[in-house]
Amino acid sequence: MSDPAARPRFRIVVLGGGFAGLAFCRAFRFPGAEITLVDRQNHHLFQPLLYQVAVAGLAAPDIAEPIRSIFRKRDDIHVRLGEVASIRLDERRVILRDGAALPYDYLVVALGGVTGYFGHDEWAQHAPGIKTLDDALLVRRRLLLAFEQAEIEPDPERVRELLTIVVVGGGPTGVELAGAISDLARTILRRDFSRIDPTRARVVLIEAGSRVLSTFPEDLSEKARLQLQKLGVEVRLDTPVADIRPGEVVLKPDAEAAPGENILRAGLVLWGAGVVAAPLARSLGAPVDRAGRLVVEPDLSLPGRPEIFALGDIASAKRPDGKPVPGVAPAAMQMGRHAAQVIAAELRARGDPASAPAGATVRDAFAYRDKGDLATIGRAAAVARIGRLRFSGRPAWLAWLLVHLVFLVGFRNRIAVLISWLYSYITYKSGARVVTGLDTPPGAEESGPPSAPHR
Amino acid sequence: MSDPAARPRFRIVVLGGGFAGLAFCRAFRFPGAEITLVDRQNHHLFQPLLYQVAVAGLAAPDIAEPIRSIFRKRDDIHVRLGEVASIRLDERRVILRDGAALPYDYLVVALGGVTGYFGHDEWAQHAPGIKTLDDALLVRRRLLLAFEQAEIEPDPERVRELLTIVVVGGGPTGVELAGAISDLARTILRRDFSRIDPTRARVVLIEAGSRVLSTFPEDLSEKARLQLQKLGVEVRLDTPVADIRPGEVVLKPDAEAAPGENILRAGLVLWGAGVVAAPLARSLGAPVDRAGRLVVEPDLSLPGRPEIFALGDIASAKRPDGKPVPGVAPAAMQMGRHAAQVIAAELRARGDPASAPAGATVRDAFAYRDKGDLATIGRAAAVARIGRLRFSGRPAWLAWLLVHLVFLVGFRNRIAVLISWLYSYITYKSGARVVTGLDTPPGAEESGPPSAPHR
Repeated sequence: MSDPAARPRFRIVVLGGGFAGLAFCRAFRFPGAEITLVDRQNHHLFQPLLYQVAVAGLAAPDIAEPIRSIFRKRDDIHVRLGEVASIRLDERRVILRDGAALPYDYLVVALGGVTGYFGHDEWAQHAPGIKTLDDALLVRRRLLLAFEQAEIEPDPERVRELLTIVVVGGGPTGVELAGAISDLARTILRRDFSRIDPTRARVVLIEAGSRVLSTFPEDLSEKARLQLQKLGVEVRLDTPVADIRPGEVVLKPDAEAAPGENILRAGLVLWGAGVVAAPLARSLGAPVDRAGRLVVEPDLSLPGRPEIFALGDIASAKRPDGKPVPGVAPAAMQMGRHAAQVIAAELRARGDPASAPAGATVRDAFAYRDKGDLATIGRAAAVARIGRLRFSGRPAWLAWLLVHLVFLVGFRNRIAVLISWLYSYITYKSGARVVTGLDTPPGAEESGPPSAPHR
Repeated sequence: MSDPAARPRFRIVVLGGGFAGLAFCRAFRFPGAEITLVDRQNHHLFQPLLYQVAVAGLAAPDIAEPIRSIFRKRDDIHVRLGEVASIRLDERRVILRDGAALPYDYLVVALGGVTGYFGHDEWAQHAPGIKTLDDALLVRRRLLLAFEQAEIEPDPERVRELLTIVVVGGGPTGVELAGAISDLARTILRRDFSRIDPTRARVVLIEAGSRVLSTFPEDLSEKARLQLQKLGVEVRLDTPVADIRPGEVVLKPDAEAAPGENILRAGLVLWGAGVVAAPLARSLGAPVDRAGRLVVEPDLSLPGRPEIFALGDIASAKRPDGKPVPGVAPAAMQMGRHAAQVIAAELRARGDPASAPAGATVRDAFAYRDKGDLATIGRAAAVARIGRLRFSGRPAWLAWLLVHLVFLVGFRNRIAVLISWLYSYITYKSGARVVTGLDTPPGAEESGPPSAPHR
C-alpha cells in the first residue's frame, strides 16, 4: 500500500505492456519517480510464440505472464488495467475509458500494432489475424472445427474444401502459421480421424510479392520456400488477393487462368499479411507513416513533444543509415531501454520538474543493434541470419529454439513449457488441442458448431 | 480409413465422453461391433481439477485431452463432435442437431450433469457454476477482474464489496472453490496490487444445511469447516439463499437480524449448490428422480429398454443396501466398465443381433465398490475417508494429491502439470492468471471491463 501523502515528484505513464513497455519499466528507476503502466489485458504476451497457441501446440497461459506479477517487487510501478480513450497533450493527461485521468510528466506510448487489412476491414471476420491470445484461441477453435466438420461431411468435394486452409501473407507470421498447420495435420492429427485423412489437408500460403520473408536475404527466402514445400505447404507467390468472403479467397484474375480458377474455397482463411499501428497513434496529431506509425525523432520522442516517447511497433524509427528499425521484439526492447536511459539522464539533469522543461537536455540518439533475424517454418525448419552468417534447416531451427528459450527466461513456466513442447515434438501428440468457447453466443462468430445447454 | 463395405454387425452409440462414457469405450471391445462416441466438446475433461482452472492454478489444456487422441489406436471407435437433438427409441436412432441419424443396437447415455438452480434459472447469469472449461474460464475472468476493479475503485465501501466473494453451496465444489479462492487472494495475489490489499478479501461460503460436505461423516464435516476458517473462509451454515441478483445474494431473513443485514453485496458470486442431470434425460419418457436422473435397473439399463444403459451422473443407481451410488468419478468409471462387460457378454450369447433381442440374457447387477471419499479444501488442507480410516489436514491432502496424480496418468501433460503445480505451490506464483475473452461481445456477459479494438 502506497502512502497517498507522498506524492511522486515525477509521474511517468506507460501505455502498453508489450516488449517495449515492459523493457522500459524494467530499465527505468529514478528516486521520486512513479510509473503507471496501463494495458487493456492483464498479461504480457510472448508474441513470438502466439502462433503455437493458434495451432494448439501451447496453452494460452504458457506464453502469457500477469503484468502485476512481473512488477510485484517494484513499489514505484502501478499496474492499471484500462483502455486509453484519449490523450490530452496540452494538459499532459491520459484519459481512460473508465473515466480516470492520469497526469504525466513523461508519456511512453508503446501500444504496438493491430492486424491491418489494407482498407478492407470487412475481411477481418472471414480471415482473422493473430495479435492477441483471444485471436489465437479463435483461430485454434476454427482450425480444429474445420477438421471436425470435414469428418462428418458426406460430400467429398466439400470435404476437400473444408480441408483447405489458406494463409494470406508470406511474412514471418504467415510462414510460421502455414508451416505449423501443415505439420499439425500431417503429424499430430494424422491418426485421430476415421473418415477423413488429415494428411491430405491442403495448406496454401498466398503472397502478393515475389518471395516469402521479404525482409531476409533472397537466398534465405528461397530456402524458406523450399522448406515450406517440403512440409507440404503450397506456396503461391505473385498472387495478390482481390477479395475475401466467407469460406473463400478471390485472387486477382490471372490472364492465363480459366474462369473460376481464381477462387480458392477453404475451411479456414487466416490473415498474416499486415500489421498497422494501434489506432490511437493517429489521434495524437503527430506525423505518422503509411502504416499509421508515429514518426519519431532520433531520441524516439515525438517531434515538438519531448515529453512523449513512442516505442516498439507503434513507432516508425530510422537507423542512422536511413533504413527502418524492424518491428521485432529485440528492437522494441532496445527502444524501451533507450527511452528509460534518456528520461533518467534528463531527470538527473533537471533536478526538479519546475526548474527546467522536458527536452531541455541534449539526448542520445537511439542506435539499433541488429543481432540478426530468425524465422521459424516448422519442425526442424527455419532460416537464420546472424551477423554475416546465413543458415537454414535444422541448425537455424535450433538457433530459433535456443533464442526463444532464452527469451522465455523470466516466464514462470519456462521449464514446464519446454517439457510440454519437447514431449509434443517427440511423441507427435499435442495436448492443447482443446476447443473452448463453443458456447459463444450466436452472432459473436460468423459461423460455429451446434451448441446448446446440455452437458 | 474404414471400409464402408464392411458394415459392423453391432452398432453401439455412446453419448458423452466423460468418465463413464470413456470407461465404457476403454473396456468394451467385441469383434464386429462398432462404437460411435458423441460429445459436444472435442475433449474429455478431468472434472475434479476444473476448479483449479477457475482459480488460475492450471491452464485449460492441462486438464483436458482431445477425445480423438485418446482413441486414436481404436479403429472400432468413431468419435463424433455433435449434440443430441432427440432419441427415437422405437427406431433405435439418435438424431443429432446437425441432422445426422445414428442407428444403434445398444445405446449408452452418459451425458452427465449440468448446474442446477432449484427452479431459479435466472440466477445462472449472476452466479455461474463450473461444469465445463468455458465455465471455469468465465469464473477465472470474473474473479481476476473483481480484483482489478477494486484496485481502481475510489470508494472504500465499494472496494470492500468488490473484494467479497460469495460461494453458494457447501458441497465438494463449493468447499474447494472457497478454499482455493481464499488461498489465491492470501498468497498468490498478495503482493500484486498497490492500492488494495488482496489478503483482506472476504470469501463467504454459504450452506443451507447444518454442515459442509454432508456426504462425509460428521466429524470430517466439522474438520473441513475448521480448515476452511483457518484458510480465511467465512463459513455460514443453516443459511438458505432467498434470491441472487447482480452483485448480491439475498439470504432467507433471520428473525434476529436487523433489516438489510440479510443482503450480501459481492464482487463475485459462485454457485456450487446443485447438479442435475443433463436435460435429455427427461425427454426419454423413462422414470427420473428429483434431480432429473434416469432411474436404472440393477444392470444399469432403463426399465423396459434393455438396449439402453444410463451411466454416471445422469443415472440414479442404487447399491444393494438401497443407498444411492454417489456422483463421483470412480462410480462413473465403474458403471462404464460394468455396462461394457454386460453388453459384451450378451453379444457373445446372442451370436447374431437378428437371432435374439437385447436383454434376452440374464445380466449381472452393478456392484459399486466404495474405495472412500476425498475432498480437498486448500493448501495442505483436505478430508479423507478411505475404508474405515478417516483423516484430515496435510495427510488427507497428500492422499488427494496422490489419487489425482494417478488419475491424471493417461493425460499427456501429467509431468508438466505436476511441475507447473508444484512450482506454483512452492513459489506462491501462479502462471495461469491470465484473462482471455475480454473482447466478448456486449450482452454475452452481464458485465465486463472496458474493451475496444486497440492493441
